Amino acid sequence: MTKEHDLINRYFAPLCSGPSVAPAFGLLDDTALLAPAIDQQLLITTDALVAEVHFFADDAADTIAHKALAVNVSDIVAKGGQPTSYLLTIALPKNIDADWLAQFADGLGAAQQAFGCELVGGDTVSTSGPLMISITMLGNIDRGKMVKRNGAAPGDVVFVSGSIGDAALGLLVRRKTPWAANAGVDKRWLDYLRERYLRPLPRVEIASQIAAYASAAMDVSDGLLGDFDKLCAASDVGGVIEIARVPLSDAATSVVANNPELMETVLTGGDDYEVLATVPADLADRFEQEALNVTRIGLIVERQNGLKVLDADGQLLELAQSAYDHFGDIER
Amino acid sequence: MTKEHDLINRYFAPLCSGPSVAPAFGLLDDTALLAPAIDQQLLITTDALVAEVHFFADDAADTIAHKALAVNVSDIVAKGGQPTSYLLTIALPKNIDADWLAQFADGLGAAQQAFGCELVGGDTVSTSGPLMISITMLGNIDRGKMVKRNGAAPGDVVFVSGSIGDAALGLLVRRKTPWAANAGVDKRWLDYLRERYLRPLPRVEIASQIAAYASAAMDVSDGLLGDFDKLCAASDVGGVIEIARVPLSDAATSVVANNPELMETVLTGGDDYEVLATVPADLADRFEQEALNVTRIGLIVERQNGLKVLDADGQLLELAQSAYDHFGDIER
Repeated sequence: MTKEHDLINRYFAPLCSGPSVAPAFGLLDDTALLAPAIDQQLLITTDALVAEVHFFADDAADTIAHKALAVNVSDIVAKGGQPTSYLLTIALPKNIDADWLAQFADGLGAAQQAFGCELVGGDTVSTSGPLMISITMLGNIDRGKMVKRNGAAPGDVVFVSGSIGDAALGLLVRRKTPWAANAGVDKRWLDYLRERYLRPLPRVEIASQIAAYASAAMDVSDGLLGDFDKLCAASDVGGVIEIARVPLSDAATSVVANNPELMETVLTGGDDYEVLATVPADLADRFEQEALNVTRIGLIVERQNGLKVLDADGQLLELAQSAYDHFGDIER
Repeated sequence: MTKEHDLINRYFAPLCSGPSVAPAFGLLDDTALLAPAIDQQLLITTDALVAEVHFFADDAADTIAHKALAVNVSDIVAKGGQPTSYLLTIALPKNIDADWLAQFADGLGAAQQAFGCELVGGDTVSTSGPLMISITMLGNIDRGKMVKRNGAAPGDVVFVSGSIGDAALGLLVRRKTPWAANAGVDKRWLDYLRERYLRPLPRVEIASQIAAYASAAMDVSDGLLGDFDKLCAASDVGGVIEIARVPLSDAATSVVANNPELMETVLTGGDDYEVLATVPADLADRFEQEALNVTRIGLIVERQNGLKVLDADGQLLELAQSAYDHFGDIER
């Protein structure tokens, strides 16, 4: 009927396939129906990505789609929820063609399958500006089990999932920073780091353990230290992180060994999409056993003790305020 | 803490005041919690507005906010739902300043109060392109009562709320089209039409009658005839609309009397945000009595009878395909 309809029918309708909802994408309707089970509540979050701010305009379309979905799934998972459905708003510059859209839809399809959610609605608009993708993600959570940011208490153990800093280093690789061209760095590590930047993998597999054990949690999207600061502020507590405990991938370990100054990038760089969680001390062992791939990195303390980052020798690390605040760099 | 946090705290946090949910806007959390009552389901829809596509960049900030919210409320109302909460994603160009944001937030606050919903989350990003506002709106609907587009059946009466064409004419006024400068047109009418374009008023007051009586419904956003075409296509039926019955405001009546060629603009121009609904014939009287300000404009017929638009003499009106498809003009 219209260009918008053609576009939706061809690329996005196939992604609205689930039986659980009345889907909507300017197709049969423009409003979707959600019917959570009686013992469940709905989580909802939204994150937008803008070309040249949050990704490179010439990144492969399927990786852009993957990332747009992943960053939203990450928010749901960090609250203990299971992602279920999402709405996609995409602002398309004139230079976007059918090939790009097909690859984008392929990437979205693969990502939604990997994360266990489905498209239920959205909007397509044109823009004279950069490509922008805004996703609203919904998730299920057992009634009363949402893990907020503000539940951390002194004595709680601080955990992080996966490994930290890969994406921040991967961004430098993507930007062809000089050290990445050094012969000393294994190309396989560089490829691994770049991939971690381009295709973050939110930890859907530990959502139920987060819901069961965490007193507070959030995803690590703006840098470990900055996000830890936010969690502690929301919970009105202080905290200690031991850098030597922060889990690094083999790739990041190798890169940092050759470029020690990059450790700050690892700790503050962002785009990790791992989960930062606090767990009461008496539950910490069980959480550690049941949740895949989580690592103790610190402790929650009283607020008046402030925020401390300890180096490998247990010495207090001096970090600029910028370590906690990258919004100025990456946003505006 | 950060510029984004400052911005959210100052302008948007005051709009997250309701008791019904755990709000989220990068504040205490970045994920909101929704807990619909057991006998209710959730409607969800999303519509984005881009500067110079859906509004003028120099429109007053409060009217832009009003419109962004109104177009989303309109989708919920047309499904029979009551708007409850929304997420706001805003992409800000560099030239947006604090005054603009304050006015935008004021407009949003006034609009959410008028429509009975509240802010529960969102995202702010910067863009090198035009201002863009993407809203995801949630609404409550009694279980099983969502009114879809595909329920119209032959014999159903076609209704529309309010008056049609004001916004399309108002857009021409806003564009300073020559007829609007003619001395023959009353300035009060021009002001009225421009206001109808700038501040659409979705018919929240008839949502429960839509839910109770309508077999199919949608909001009129892309022009009455085009949207009627969509509704009939979704329902696999034909339909007849009698132009003489289409409700026009006094302002539109006056303008069209002086400029008869604008009747096509009235019928196809879009941005009405009225409700188009079909009601089984035996319920039509009750709907007409109970729903404020609705008008019978036509009838649903068998699919093979196609789509017909009759003029004041009952003659078939010839309309170009473009009458049903403005996406090419207004979108890309």
